Parts: sequence; C-alpha cells; structure tokens
Amino acid sequence: MRIIICGFGTVAQSFAKLLVSRSDDLYAKYGIMPRIVGVFDTKGGITESPGLDLNKLVEIKKKYGTVRNYGKSKKPLSGLEIINNTDADVLIETTASNYKDAEPGMSHIIAAMKRGMHVISVNKGPLALAFPSLMELATYNHVLLRFSGTVGGGTPILDYAKNSLRGEQITSFAGILNGTTNYILTNMARGMSFAAALKDAKSKGYVEADESLDLDGFDAAAKLVILANWIMGMKVTMPDIKRTGIRKVTSEDVKKAAKNNAAIKLIASCNKELIVSPREIPIDDPLCVNGTLNAISFTSEHSGTQTIIGRGAGGTETASAILRDLLDIRKEILRD
Amino acid sequence: MRIIICGFGTVAQSFAKLLVSRSDDLYAKYGIMPRIVGVFDTKGGITESPGLDLNKLVEIKKKYGTVRNYGKSKKPLSGLEIINNTDADVLIETTASNYKDAEPGMSHIIAAMKRGMHVISVNKGPLALAFPSLMELATYNHVLLRFSGTVGGGTPILDYAKNSLRGEQITSFAGILNGTTNYILTNMARGMSFAAALKDAKSKGYVEADESLDLDGFDAAAKLVILANWIMGMKVTMPDIKRTGIRKVTSEDVKKAAKNNAAIKLIASCNKELIVSPREIPIDDPLCVNGTLNAISFTSEHSGTQTIIGRGAGGTETASAILRDLLDIRKEILRD
Repeated sequence: MRIIICGFGTVAQSFAKLLVSRSDDLYAKYGIMPRIVGVFDTKGGITESPGLDLNKLVEIKKKYGTVRNYGKSKKPLSGLEIINNTDADVLIETTASNYKDAEPGMSHIIAAMKRGMHVISVNKGPLALAFPSLMELATYNHVLLRFSGTVGGGTPILDYAKNSLRGEQITSFAGILNGTTNYILTNMARGMSFAAALKDAKSKGYVEADESLDLDGFDAAAKLVILANWIMGMKVTMPDIKRTGIRKVTSEDVKKAAKNNAAIKLIASCNKELIVSPREIPIDDPLCVNGTLNAISFTSEHSGTQTIIGRGAGGTETASAILRDLLDIRKEILRD
Repeated sequence: MRIIICGFGTVAQSFAKLLVSRSDDLYAKYGIMPRIVGVFDTKGGITESPGLDLNKLVEIKKKYGTVRNYGKSKKPLSGLEIINNTDADVLIETTASNYKDAEPGMSHIIAAMKRGMHVISVNKGPLALAFPSLMELATYNHVLLRFSGTVGGGTPILDYAKNSLRGEQITSFAGILNGTTNYILTNMARGMSFAAALKDAKSKGYVEADESLDLDGFDAAAKLVILANWIMGMKVTMPDIKRTGIRKVTSEDVKKAAKNNAAIKLIASCNKELIVSPREIPIDDPLCVNGTLNAISFTSEHSGTQTIIGRGAGGTETASAILRDLLDIRKEILRD
C-alpha cells in the first residue's frame, strides 16, 4: 500500500515508528507492506516512489524541524503538489484541527478523494464542518473515508458502537470526550481553582495551542458531530451542536456537586438534541472517570447501557487507530 | 435460517420474543427470516418443519411449564432425537451451565456439529471444560461455534477484544465477570455482613440455584477460560484456573480496603497466570464498578488500558447477544 502523510507531528511520527516496529508482523499476519511515498509539513515535503526510509525521516524531522530536508537536491514540494502528482492508495491527514474553515486538511482530503485515494483522517476539522458532504464525496469517488483516531484516540469507540453493537439500535449516548477539560475539572474537584488547574494542565502539555478548542468545548463538539453522523446516521455539522465550555465553572459549583455525591464533567450527549455542556454526574456512574480519561456510555434498545473508558489521546494510541483504519481499508478493498 | 433451541428458560424465551418483535426489521435490514423448527426442555420437545409459532410457544411454556404440550398428538421428543432428526442450520444451546461434566449441553453441541450445524452457546459449561477440543471439532466439521452471550451478557466484551482491537496485541486483562458476587461485595462495602448480603441477593433472584457457581468463583472462572482461549489464543480449560471464591471475605477485610481508598472485588485476571480471587482495587480505577455491573480492562501494547462496563446478565441482553451471533454466522456463510 502506497501512503501519503499530511503533517508530521507527534501522531504521524508515532505512526511511522509503529510501521517500522511492526513491519514483519504486518506482512506475516495481514500480507501488507505499507510504504510512505510522500510526506509534508508546513515547510514543504518530499516524495520517493519506492518509499521513504522512515527511521531517517524521523531523524531529519527531529534535526531540522521539517521533513523537507530529507531529499538533498530536490525543490521541496507543497502538500497539494504532492497529492496531485504522487501515485498513492491512501492519504493520512494529520494536520491540526481548525474549526473555522478546516484548512489545510479539507483541501488535502478533497484533492485525494478526487484522485481516487482512500482517506484516513485524524484531523477532526474537516469532519466537524462537513461530515455529510465528505461522506458523499467518498461514495461518489468510490473511496473509503476512515477516522477511528478522531474520537477516543486509541480507544475504538466508533468501531465498538458501529460493529460490536451491530444488530442493536443505539437510542442515546453521553460521553466525556475531551481529556484536557476532564483533567482540569478533576483537579478543581480536588480543591484547585480554575486558573491553577488550567496552568497545571498547560505545564503538562495537555492544552491545545489554541486553548479555546479545549476550554470552549470545540474539541468535544467536533467529536459529537462525528459520533452523531457515523453512529446515529444524523446529517449534522458543528453549528448543530449546543455548546457551552467550562470557563464559567466555579469552585463553588464543584463543591456543591460533591455534596450531592456528584462531579461536574463536560458532557457531550446525543438524546434528541446534541449538547456539549458542563453537567453534574453521580460519582458512582461508570461515566464519571477522572484525570485525562475519556468515557462514553451508549444506551441501546436491548443491551442496556454500556460504558467504554480509555485514554482519549496520545501519539502511540492514535497511531494504533490509524493502523486499524489501514487494515480495515485493506480488508474492504480485498472484498470488492 | 432453521434453528433448534435447547432449553426454553428466560434467555431462550427472551430470544423468541426478540425474533417476533424484530422480524420485519431483520428481514429488511439483513435479509434473514429465522425459523425455530425444534425446541425442547427437560420434559421433552417438539419439532415443526415450517417453523413454530413463537407467541404460542411462549404461552404454552408459561401455562404448562414445558414446551412439550405445544403439539397435541405427537409423542414428545428428547433433545438428541430432535437434534439428530431435524433439518436445521443453527443450534442454540441455552441449558444450564454445569462444571462437572457439562451435560446435557456438551452432548447437544457435539451432536449438532457432527450433523453440520453451526452452534451458538450461551451455556458456559461445555466451553469451560472443553474449549480447545470443541473449537477443533467445529473446524473439522466446517461449522462455526459462537458464544457472545457467555461473557458480559449483552455487553459485547468478546467482540470488542477480538474485533475492535484488531491489529493490536492484548498483553493482559482483568475483570469483574460475575454480577452476583459483585452485588454481594458492594453491599458488604456499604456495611452488610456476608450472610445478610447473600440473603438479599437471593431475595432478588441474583443467585444461581447452585450458589457455589457464584460464590466459589466457578462462573467467573468459566468466563476466564473462554476469554483466555478466544482472545489470547491459549488452550486452557477449567482446571488451569487458580480459583478462590468470596466466602472467606470478611467485613473487616472490606473495611480495611475502604481505608486504603479501595474495594474488594472478585477479579478474574490473565497476566501470565489465570486467576480468580478477591482482590483490592482502587476506588477510582475504572474497573471498580458497583452493584451487579460487570467490567473488564484490557491492556494492549499500543492502545493503553481500556475498560468496558455493562450489565453482565439479563434475559433480553443475552438474547441480543444470541442475535448478534446469528447475524455473524449469516455473514460468514455468505462470505464462503
């Protein structure tokens, strides 16, 4: 399988390392030999038809801060130049999420699908702003669009709801989908002020460069859009979510909740309406997890309520989700 | 699909009702029209080649305590007579689990597989005592053996580990797999004595007719055997499990745990050794669920630790697991 990777940050680097460490195993178990034939970051990119040396690629990125220095003589290429001129089967989009116009990821995905490439996106922006139309474009171009890593990181939440609960009707769900705000709220429940808890989360590297994405609930809302489309068959985008962040949660609110044997959590829920807002959850509800953990409870017609809990982020975890998508695409292709 | 059901207790009746309520939907969505062509309980059974009237069947069972009164004139048939003389695609085994010789379920399953029927078992006995050899027998006879309902009831624990985590290596797992003992231990943590908690659980109908299956950890151990074989590829049976039940857990033990911010739970774990025993679990570990809930945490090489929580029993829930297995078998057959 010939792969182009857009962006070469933590997740993409983890994915490259995962491919190196598991290459024998992937070939033996699944018969695939993935080759990265093109990669770019904000400073430009490179292609190499027989496949790039992934160890060298990671080293170059570490040394120069960009992958463009991988090739010596060639002029570095732009992302769209690479996508439009490289022969590849799959595009992996890992650039940063942006909820204004979803660029540059949106253009990468559209260009790749028009050229007949399957797409794996861990970038939530394009899905949050245009899930229904991207799905239509994929169908129209006979390609697959996968995005396991967008919700739950390495925890296969989307797959669980779609496949493990096949034959079931999910009637509603509610989840803690953003680890950063959960970490902040957990520390507030342990006595910190909002400001101190935010500072602590920043010092640990948990907060997005644009803190509003976490604190104002954009990240949780984007995941809710993806879940609502993929699992409930709704055709919705970001503006359909009623969204309230955690900036106005006070230490008093948190103390009041504790008196009720509850905790305040940023909950994303789908039950007729799509809502992201801070809400009180009983302490002994399985959903009420602490620290950076994510959790989601699905309620289905015949199987009751089931909760999945796991880390919602992390380079290695998200890279493992990309690999699952890749194996999934491979399986679907073979079936045709 | 032509189906024989062994046993017609709560689970089988729930399954019959589920088929009635979802018949249109199953035909429209999956193109299947399941027909129960044979059924029996301890007092005998009946067959009807065009398929039994399921509403009538449930009524007859309710009225007479057995399904044998469904047909008027015919002599009631034994289970093996039905299995050996009825043309069917799938056998659903729902008789009671027995960890001494796994009968009568073992004979039903073996007879059905030898006749080329696929088997769905919610009876844990045969799997606990002979998982590796039953799997071999299924392969030899080119039939499928499925058992989603044996672990987690309607919570698709086996499917999650096998499919949602595909491409991953699960390195260890630990779970609360028996709802009855969890209910008892939860009440002990709230101040009840073991005797009072057991009495309360019995009054609610949570305890097996043979209380030893719950209290001495046989039920949890049987589920551990199934998980170890199916998910870890181990070839083990009941005697390979180190098993300790909850009878010796005292109120003092429970109080001591509470002081450590922990709770005593009956944990079934696979980490080199296969063990069922009461152990202290930190209160804020996602695994530490209360009441009759089940929970299991899988640790995998790249995706960290993930926990699934849900009700582990219940007629409707287990019936929904049988239906998932049936859809799964249908899908596999079509693929051949």
